[in-house]
Amino acid sequence: MDFDLIREVVIPAETKIVLLVMDGLGGLPDPRTGRTEMETARIANLDRLAQEGICGMVYHVGFGITPGSGPGHLSLFGYDPLRYRIGRGALEAVGIDFDLRPQDVAARGNFCTVDDGGLVVDRRAGRIDTDTCARLCAELRTIELPGAELFVEPVKEHRFLLVLRGDGLSDALNETDPQKVGVPPVEVAARAPEAQATAGLVSAFVAEARDRLRDHHPANMVLLRGFARWPDLPSFPEVFGLRAAAIAFYPMYRGLAKLVGMTALSTGPSLSDSLAALREHWGQFDFFFVHYKATDSTGEDGNFQGKVARLEEVDAVIPELLTLNPDVIMVTGDHSTPSTYRAHSWHPVPFVLRSRWCQPDRAEAFNERDCQKGSLGLFAATEIMPLAMAHADRFTKYGA
Amino acid sequence: MDFDLIREVVIPAETKIVLLVMDGLGGLPDPRTGRTEMETARIANLDRLAQEGICGMVYHVGFGITPGSGPGHLSLFGYDPLRYRIGRGALEAVGIDFDLRPQDVAARGNFCTVDDGGLVVDRRAGRIDTDTCARLCAELRTIELPGAELFVEPVKEHRFLLVLRGDGLSDALNETDPQKVGVPPVEVAARAPEAQATAGLVSAFVAEARDRLRDHHPANMVLLRGFARWPDLPSFPEVFGLRAAAIAFYPMYRGLAKLVGMTALSTGPSLSDSLAALREHWGQFDFFFVHYKATDSTGEDGNFQGKVARLEEVDAVIPELLTLNPDVIMVTGDHSTPSTYRAHSWHPVPFVLRSRWCQPDRAEAFNERDCQKGSLGLFAATEIMPLAMAHADRFTKYGA
Repeated sequence: MDFDLIREVVIPAETKIVLLVMDGLGGLPDPRTGRTEMETARIANLDRLAQEGICGMVYHVGFGITPGSGPGHLSLFGYDPLRYRIGRGALEAVGIDFDLRPQDVAARGNFCTVDDGGLVVDRRAGRIDTDTCARLCAELRTIELPGAELFVEPVKEHRFLLVLRGDGLSDALNETDPQKVGVPPVEVAARAPEAQATAGLVSAFVAEARDRLRDHHPANMVLLRGFARWPDLPSFPEVFGLRAAAIAFYPMYRGLAKLVGMTALSTGPSLSDSLAALREHWGQFDFFFVHYKATDSTGEDGNFQGKVARLEEVDAVIPELLTLNPDVIMVTGDHSTPSTYRAHSWHPVPFVLRSRWCQPDRAEAFNERDCQKGSLGLFAATEIMPLAMAHADRFTKYGA
Repeated sequence: MDFDLIREVVIPAETKIVLLVMDGLGGLPDPRTGRTEMETARIANLDRLAQEGICGMVYHVGFGITPGSGPGHLSLFGYDPLRYRIGRGALEAVGIDFDLRPQDVAARGNFCTVDDGGLVVDRRAGRIDTDTCARLCAELRTIELPGAELFVEPVKEHRFLLVLRGDGLSDALNETDPQKVGVPPVEVAARAPEAQATAGLVSAFVAEARDRLRDHHPANMVLLRGFARWPDLPSFPEVFGLRAAAIAFYPMYRGLAKLVGMTALSTGPSLSDSLAALREHWGQFDFFFVHYKATDSTGEDGNFQGKVARLEEVDAVIPELLTLNPDVIMVTGDHSTPSTYRAHSWHPVPFVLRSRWCQPDRAEAFNERDCQKGSLGLFAATEIMPLAMAHADRFTKYGA
């Protein structure tokens, strides 16, 4: 939905909204039973939400499109994921909890191997271990550039994050990764006039990195790609008029929430940590995004019974969550991760919303088959925030 | 749907289409029974339409958006309510059955109270009674402006309608209502070069009104806002190739129909008045918009049983309506007004269309839960006119 329309109808209220995102929620049937993970799990509390609330099946980007975590969450937050994109460098920064700022330019870096003639022979430097990566990053971090602050942060194995911080930087730069071996790294160049200065800084960094890494074979050179600035996303708290908090343990999800202007609360890895954070900050915020990761991890591992167990684990804390009396509670996922598929998938994801103003519908259990019977039908994830706002008495009518 | 596409496929036919709009039709369950007003009412004739026709749930503006009567009806008539907007002044004119014309500029007026220093102390002049308002309007109506005709019409209490009629008028004017007390009224000013002359006329009116109202404390000044011209809506009869009539008793709905080019027929307040008008004009028109208000009024009053009774009252006249043999009959609402919510709401509204060409579907009763099972699913109200046209054999195929 258009943010201008939302701004036009938003009104203040005292109500509370909780969005519980079970990562990778949707699944596919176990061929032996014909039942999905959600149909197999004993999740009576979630089923009760489905009976009392309105249900549907959510798609995040489009029919048949498998969302990455970025687009999956952006759409849940109301942002058209085709219009609002987060550049790879910025996503990498977010993924390691780096405090990316509006004046930064971030890039994904690889340590790589070049031969004596300067030709790339291994784009991943033999996948050096993460400790080596951290040691080399510490060395590169001491490089000095005129007029810009420099950050070089290890990610995993040969991957690192490069961030330049300064005034007037631009991300309109060519990648230096040639994407094949036997050729030299690409010289960095400005793709727009305003990026000339930044291109100069990055070239200087690359030249100095080459010198300093000379004796660190196989990691004797760097490749850079995905130059990206802070994505210029409208502010979620401003658009929806909500004091918004994220309760997420993993950096990627904390980062995504911060990119849209939510406050990322401190929390631990367990569901009881999430519940504790929710209780502690209940009075200070109007909207809580609560992220639960393990449904995705078990799906990616192909661990059907593990995913079932994780669903039951979430179900068990629903009664405690409801004691906070949220005016609107929504449960859904950012994409499906069927255990039989072992990866993110394009399958629509079950959705439930419960408030005191729910139109009756026919879904009686929280799973794929029942949510298909729900009154919301198959619908775009970008619509769930408008639905939540309406059910929380936070929208006035449109037009007289 | 895009009007260009509609124009491209419209063909002439002799068929008749009836659109019966029950204002505020959709509801929510009575907590004691779990059944909505429509599920409680005995409406066997409407249920039979649902069994024989195609059903669905309609939203008028977007998920979670509560439509005002203007956008609600515009979307039923096929107009994208986000694209086509009716300015507040024009809507006020329509609401009192004022004969607004394309060369008019209309504004909503308030009588207000100013102190000796000219500062606003009460934006509503103590809510003077409507008779006083009418008397003061009669006084202001005699103000003469060079080159423009002037209308000042009472609305209710302190509210009135101002209309200027003349060539070259513009509605690009600042509001004079400061929206707070302790400050003087805002001087009217042109927001675009072409509005200079109109700004001069309105300033002259305001100055003269101030003089004439000087001794009429508390109504000793006027505030103006919502300057609006006749909304430049495409003509419904032209787009759809339909001779179109509105059978509506309340001025707002007659006005909305007239704004899109329908002929507003004379009728009384009762259902039998509506049926009589329908019978009388059956031969002269192809399309009839029949408006029924009481389902909304009872909903706004929180009168669940009253709304149930109104539904049954409408149901009782369906057989008589069907004796006219409309080729297409549609029944729906312009928004929901649940009795428990006591106001317009965002909840989707049941919809049924019956013609001889209906695909079978699973809805067997005319209510929220059953229409959710209908073949149309949850869909935009702007699609109902194309559906009606097709089922009335008034569309040819698109493309070869």
